[in-house]
Amino acid sequence: MLEKTTRMNYLFDFYQDLLTPKQQNYMSLYYLDDFSLGEIAEQFEVSRQAVYDNIKRTEAMLEEYEDKLHLYEKFLMRQKMFKKLSSLLEKHIKKEESKEIFDVLKEIQELD
Amino acid sequence: MLEKTTRMNYLFDFYQDLLTPKQQNYMSLYYLDDFSLGEIAEQFEVSRQAVYDNIKRTEAMLEEYEDKLHLYEKFLMRQKMFKKLSSLLEKHIKKEESKEIFDVLKEIQELD
Repeated sequence: MLEKTTRMNYLFDFYQDLLTPKQQNYMSLYYLDDFSLGEIAEQFEVSRQAVYDNIKRTEAMLEEYEDKLHLYEKFLMRQKMFKKLSSLLEKHIKKEESKEIFDVLKEIQELD
Repeated sequence: MLEKTTRMNYLFDFYQDLLTPKQQNYMSLYYLDDFSLGEIAEQFEVSRQAVYDNIKRTEAMLEEYEDKLHLYEKFLMRQKMFKKLSSLLEKHIKKEESKEIFDVLKEIQELD
């Protein structure tokens, strides 16, 4: 469950702008703010089932976007390679020379 | 016009999997294979106007996806920063030590 929550948090982060405002609201309350289905239902004055159905549909949509665009998968691969790159750089560059290099590397990573 | 063609080629590359097969066909023939609207119309036995309308709508969709996900924009920024990184690395690392580092860097870039 925790693993699924982490994955959904990332997928939501990457693809949220492709969702409707209602989908964004429900997902954000459920996954980021840890509201229960009942609490979301109460806040929007709809049934618990309606919230559940909407969230399930949205989760499926996020997985479809990931199947097509692979943004999360590429992010994970990029992270792994940046780690490898960092350890190679630490081995070959003198510490006093490396600041500028690691700054650019950080900038690139923050684009994700 | 050349600038627009380059942009559309990139946007199509990033977002083509979000399009319908028909949209993919028309865009690919028009932008990648340089077919005229008339030639596409003939091949699919539809009017030139129908092809034109479909392509215009698809172009607008691609721009909407880019407004939301910024994949092309991030790709351009990443490219610029990789260039900066490469020139810094060339300055600070001995050539015989740099192969492994530049290999990883290339791998990261090829993810785009």
